[in-house]
Amino acid sequence: MPVIALLTDFGTQDIYVGVMKGVIWSICPEAQIADLTHEIPPQDIVAGGLALWGAFRFFPKGTVFCAVVDPGVGTKRRAIAVQTSQYFFVGPDNGLLWWSIGESHVLKVVELKNDKYFLPAISNTFHGRDIFAPVSAHLAKGIPISEFGLEIDLDKLVKLPPLRASFDEQVLVAQVIHIDRFGNAITNLRRKDFETWLESIGNKLWLATIKGKSFNSIAKSYGECPEGEPLLLFNSYDLLEIAVNKGNAAIALGIRKGDQIKIQTTKERATEGV
Amino acid sequence: MPVIALLTDFGTQDIYVGVMKGVIWSICPEAQIADLTHEIPPQDIVAGGLALWGAFRFFPKGTVFCAVVDPGVGTKRRAIAVQTSQYFFVGPDNGLLWWSIGESHVLKVVELKNDKYFLPAISNTFHGRDIFAPVSAHLAKGIPISEFGLEIDLDKLVKLPPLRASFDEQVLVAQVIHIDRFGNAITNLRRKDFETWLESIGNKLWLATIKGKSFNSIAKSYGECPEGEPLLLFNSYDLLEIAVNKGNAAIALGIRKGDQIKIQTTKERATEGV
Amino acid sequence: MPVIALLTDFGTQDIYVGVMKGVIWSICPEAQIADLTHEIPPQDIVAGGLALWGAFRFFPKGTVFCAVVDPGVGTKRRAIAVQTSQYFFVGPDNGLLWWSIGESHVLKVVELKNDKYFLPAISNTFHGRDIFAPVSAHLAKGIPISEFGLEIDLDKLVKLPPLRASFDEQVLVAQVIHIDRFGNAITNLRRKDFETWLESIGNKLWLATIKGKSFNSIAKSYGECPEGEPLLLFNSYDLLEIAVNKGNAAIALGIRKGDQIKIQTTKERATEGV
Repeated sequence: MPVIALLTDFGTQDIYVGVMKGVIWSICPEAQIADLTHEIPPQDIVAGGLALWGAFRFFPKGTVFCAVVDPGVGTKRRAIAVQTSQYFFVGPDNGLLWWSIGESHVLKVVELKNDKYFLPAISNTFHGRDIFAPVSAHLAKGIPISEFGLEIDLDKLVKLPPLRASFDEQVLVAQVIHIDRFGNAITNLRRKDFETWLESIGNKLWLATIKGKSFNSIAKSYGECPEGEPLLLFNSYDLLEIAVNKGNAAIALGIRKGDQIKIQTTKERATEGV
Repeated sequence: MPVIALLTDFGTQDIYVGVMKGVIWSICPEAQIADLTHEIPPQDIVAGGLALWGAFRFFPKGTVFCAVVDPGVGTKRRAIAVQTSQYFFVGPDNGLLWWSIGESHVLKVVELKNDKYFLPAISNTFHGRDIFAPVSAHLAKGIPISEFGLEIDLDKLVKLPPLRASFDEQVLVAQVIHIDRFGNAITNLRRKDFETWLESIGNKLWLATIKGKSFNSIAKSYGECPEGEPLLLFNSYDLLEIAVNKGNAAIALGIRKGDQIKIQTTKERATEGV
Repeated sequence: MPVIALLTDFGTQDIYVGVMKGVIWSICPEAQIADLTHEIPPQDIVAGGLALWGAFRFFPKGTVFCAVVDPGVGTKRRAIAVQTSQYFFVGPDNGLLWWSIGESHVLKVVELKNDKYFLPAISNTFHGRDIFAPVSAHLAKGIPISEFGLEIDLDKLVKLPPLRASFDEQVLVAQVIHIDRFGNAITNLRRKDFETWLESIGNKLWLATIKGKSFNSIAKSYGECPEGEPLLLFNSYDLLEIAVNKGNAAIALGIRKGDQIKIQTTKERATEGV
């Protein structure tokens, strides 16, 4: 049974997502449809791109990801489909798919132009229903991607900044890219990059600072710290996260999306209160 | 695979919707279940009826719509099932289904009375679980609608006001019937009715006014206007909508459900600030 | 088609639930997945346990319940699977499953230890994805429960207080255990226990009091009372509920979780205002 995974900023108050499912099942009645989330902040391409990147690798081979965070709907932004060695991605060409396909072996990118696979009438406001849902359903049914339009060059797609923290021998600078429901602040520092940096500085002592609060260790779980205490850990995506055990780190420390955390070598272990 | 589409005001905080799915799959294990939305404002039959009307035509033939916005549960209001040439509708007889079946070729309406197709114990508070879910599942399995109760006359059903704006040769008056998650204000003016009126006035210039704000054109997409500017467009349901590009029209213009937009012929093009 | 029902405190803003579905369908592509709710207040084991208890009996035989409200994730709390005569339950051993399995005929309890059935890398923060989802999917595929780890004694599991009100010949004391979306206050008094108590007092008159408000009768439906009036009824779980017809009882009466309602015999019928 083919799987189609939906990710949008449509919310669940309105019928938009339900209608997309109606369109999909009209074309591919046997599809399993998963909701990744529909609560991406309206028109927040970065939040949508991060969510898709964090989720896609856990789905079965052949899954079609239909992602719609589309502030440019009705303008000349392109609609695309991407085939990788494992998956299909369908959505607007505005960066939303970039982090996911950037870590995949891309086989083909096409611009969606063949209206044989669209709904008969195309609105200017809801391509999720009129283009992206029916194309995803036809892909799930096995229609080859080349049927949907002409191939375009991967290099010509709209990109997002790299999902990686920057570092040199002295300092590592990461950014908060997402605050989740529990108030955990998720950064763009991957575990592997942190380990590489640690090795490059000879595994010396280090001090991480954000919003005047310092840390000198990485916890293995929330429960390892006393309740109410802030901590650093690598979360389920292996991205560095600032959290508070049974609390809300964003509120407790005043952290917002875009804030920086700096990690520097230090001679002594941090003392309490630093 | 039969499709059952659910629309309720139950929210997703509680288990009510999950329980309905358990009941459905106990009877019809192969059903595909779509959530249209469960965030209809509690007991708001009009909002529920509009959502159902906007969604139903995008579903595959044979879909069973199980709609439960039911302030009269436990009283003498009737429970009904409706078979149209394309679909089945199941829910309370309180107007909720009216706009949808009003645009369909109705084959039969029955009052749900045969408790062979209900859960063994019927509560006074949760007919979604005890009556509407099991009846929907039995319909999806192919039980003929006449099995569920005696036929009743379409004319005897509880109705809602027509989902159409009123107009004469001078003026067209539409009402805001829904504010969506993005703050778009959706009216009861259909694109076809607007075009008919335009023709009847000889395609003269016109001016639309709501909350002291005037418009003299219809946009084709949100992106066509500068950011933050209000605009009119026909939305994905082909209903006139007041929107703000990358903004919230309801907040920006102070529009509420029930507000009127008047469209009148005018001699000159509106000047800025009018 | 096997059914897997999910209950978590993950919310739907993030991708956690979607990722669990990806993991499940990677292992058991034909599973029907129901969302019971993902809006359990973060880390509220009692609210989660109540929701699971209220829902499980409406699902088809063989359903696998995958419940994750797991403040101790990453600590030494055990992960368990339980087979009853009808169902499977998978989750942390922290009380969450207790009320549900406490009313079932338990066949076997195992501690989840066989990492052959886990994801290859186990995080310290997201056992829903790494352990509970894959184990649930393997159970749905028919792997015997004894494959997942050693049997443990039912008596050794973490328990919750009994889901029953206490009573003697004079007085019955129940507690508010949940406030639902409509503001209905749900207590731990079961209909059968109330009927038993009534019989034990010789079916005399009684008076129920909560927050200074008194009641001397049980309504059969919300609609039976005038709008805005508070009432008592046995709800869809056959638990005593304090509600307001077309209103919000928790706000109107100032009721919070944990508040007590006392029911005592009385000589006279309550007069207005008592």
